[in-house]
Amino acid sequence: MTESNRRILLRARPEGRVGPEHFETVDEAPPSPRPGEALLRNRFVSLDPYMRGRMSAAKSYSAPVEIGAVMEGQSVAQVVEDPTGRFGAGDWVLGGAGWQRFSAVPAAGLRKLDPGAAPVTTALGVLGMPGTTAWVGVTEIASPRPGETFVVSAASGAVGGVAGQIAGRMGARVVGIAGGPEKCAFVREELGFPECVDHRAPDFADRLAAACPEGIDSYFENVGGAVQRAVFPLLNDFARVAFCGMVAEYNDAEPAPGPNLMALVRKRLKLQGFIVRDHPRAFADWPRIGGAWLREGALKYREDRVQGLENAPEAFAGLLAGRNFGKLIVEVT
Amino acid sequence: MTESNRRILLRARPEGRVGPEHFETVDEAPPSPRPGEALLRNRFVSLDPYMRGRMSAAKSYSAPVEIGAVMEGQSVAQVVEDPTGRFGAGDWVLGGAGWQRFSAVPAAGLRKLDPGAAPVTTALGVLGMPGTTAWVGVTEIASPRPGETFVVSAASGAVGGVAGQIAGRMGARVVGIAGGPEKCAFVREELGFPECVDHRAPDFADRLAAACPEGIDSYFENVGGAVQRAVFPLLNDFARVAFCGMVAEYNDAEPAPGPNLMALVRKRLKLQGFIVRDHPRAFADWPRIGGAWLREGALKYREDRVQGLENAPEAFAGLLAGRNFGKLIVEVT
Repeated sequence: MTESNRRILLRARPEGRVGPEHFETVDEAPPSPRPGEALLRNRFVSLDPYMRGRMSAAKSYSAPVEIGAVMEGQSVAQVVEDPTGRFGAGDWVLGGAGWQRFSAVPAAGLRKLDPGAAPVTTALGVLGMPGTTAWVGVTEIASPRPGETFVVSAASGAVGGVAGQIAGRMGARVVGIAGGPEKCAFVREELGFPECVDHRAPDFADRLAAACPEGIDSYFENVGGAVQRAVFPLLNDFARVAFCGMVAEYNDAEPAPGPNLMALVRKRLKLQGFIVRDHPRAFADWPRIGGAWLREGALKYREDRVQGLENAPEAFAGLLAGRNFGKLIVEVT
Repeated sequence: MTESNRRILLRARPEGRVGPEHFETVDEAPPSPRPGEALLRNRFVSLDPYMRGRMSAAKSYSAPVEIGAVMEGQSVAQVVEDPTGRFGAGDWVLGGAGWQRFSAVPAAGLRKLDPGAAPVTTALGVLGMPGTTAWVGVTEIASPRPGETFVVSAASGAVGGVAGQIAGRMGARVVGIAGGPEKCAFVREELGFPECVDHRAPDFADRLAAACPEGIDSYFENVGGAVQRAVFPLLNDFARVAFCGMVAEYNDAEPAPGPNLMALVRKRLKLQGFIVRDHPRAFADWPRIGGAWLREGALKYREDRVQGLENAPEAFAGLLAGRNFGKLIVEVT
């Protein structure tokens, strides 16, 4: 084996904005599998906004990555060797192998992928954790009904794009919010949302109101910040807000104040946060349902691929700033 | 008939704090019933925080009281005459007759009260709209489970006192929040909550944390403001917050910012507002269930009675400032 194990380690915890200085790239010898483990060669590593939380020591729903440890993340890999006999060399698998070229992980925790059924990277995006997140937030919390207005922020992203398509299948009128004319055009033309509003426009709040002449009945929150402030006054009585994330605020050293909550009573609103891993059934339901839509050509997605692990830190910083365009994936060269 | 019809009219819309200057007391001749109406002599008029919303022209779930119109509100009355024949003279009824001594109202909208079954004023409080509000918020939103910690603010009030007792019957450990040592003593000793924390104490937030050593699993919000700010950091993962009202903020001319909502995702919180009239079934369920508890001596309540309609404006201003102690009722002299 001639390739080194390139690995991206957490060097320091960011106080505010994440930058390359918080990471360290090292080249080591590939690991040797211990009993029960398979040796993997990662092909694609997923970059997702939740990883910002793992970089902080603040209390959250998962333990932070330790300083000096490899950054966590899901990957699509090929098996180099599996002494347990579960997998053959060259098999494609999905696992949580981190930002590194090689990893030795428990073979029992890997899921085999069929490259003939769907492109393997869909297991990281549209049919994977992000798509399943969209499925849970839309069907269990936002609960759009036919004829209602459903709004989703980060609409060109890995979660938002799927959320809007699911809501559209449920009969809602879907309005996306995305950053910049290019993303908005993609959301309208490729994803097929009837409207998409550019949150970078100076008159964004007015445009959003114009795009939602009958108000907003459900909102899928990925962004927070100024987008959230524009959405809240438009919420109708009995509106539901699914809180998936607030990526615009992940780099804030101090949390900004939120909206006054009196409107919750006046309008009988429901605001509910969720984390996809609390919904294990969805990990069986969504790949089956979404996989069928994908094969019919009825589910669209876009990937934003970055070449080389050494470029993962900058790509991740860009993800938090909205510079990605579609599901961000690092191709491990 | 020698008594005048004393009436309290809305004179001006308050911009901030409500005071007597926003009301006008007039004495007029009693009305004559039109076809379908009964003439009532009000005995008890209910004062409730929601009436603050009716004084404002701001968009809300109900139309505002017009300037120069009588203040709205429920009352317990005796029938003077009912040309429709539904009720006899002297019958006790519950209706929405407003802040006035006499009213002529559609007889079909009145509910007959049995003074032998429960004190008639319970129809305005513990078994009426406030008690039913508690029932809905606890059983449909806060959903306390045995062994969990349930917190309720305005715990000595008409809604809060009942909410805590219902949560206690559901097996939760109930912690009240009330203003001042006298109210806290009542909540502990009379209502039987194991803990009650005085929100006027300078170290209120620390005391609340100490009273909730395992955090807060569900919260019944009546108050907002500083109480809300102390409660939010203590919410556990998967906590539910029933937003019934935010009386501490009703007089605010400008809404204060609320909490940052990132915790909704991190802790998978549910915040949900409600208005009791959206839950018609509860108006049948709660008087039956609560009435049985009351007859067993298992449901406690306290009334704060004010004599004379002319004192209603000051009493109402006191209600918004937390100066009442129990369900506030005006005895119509």
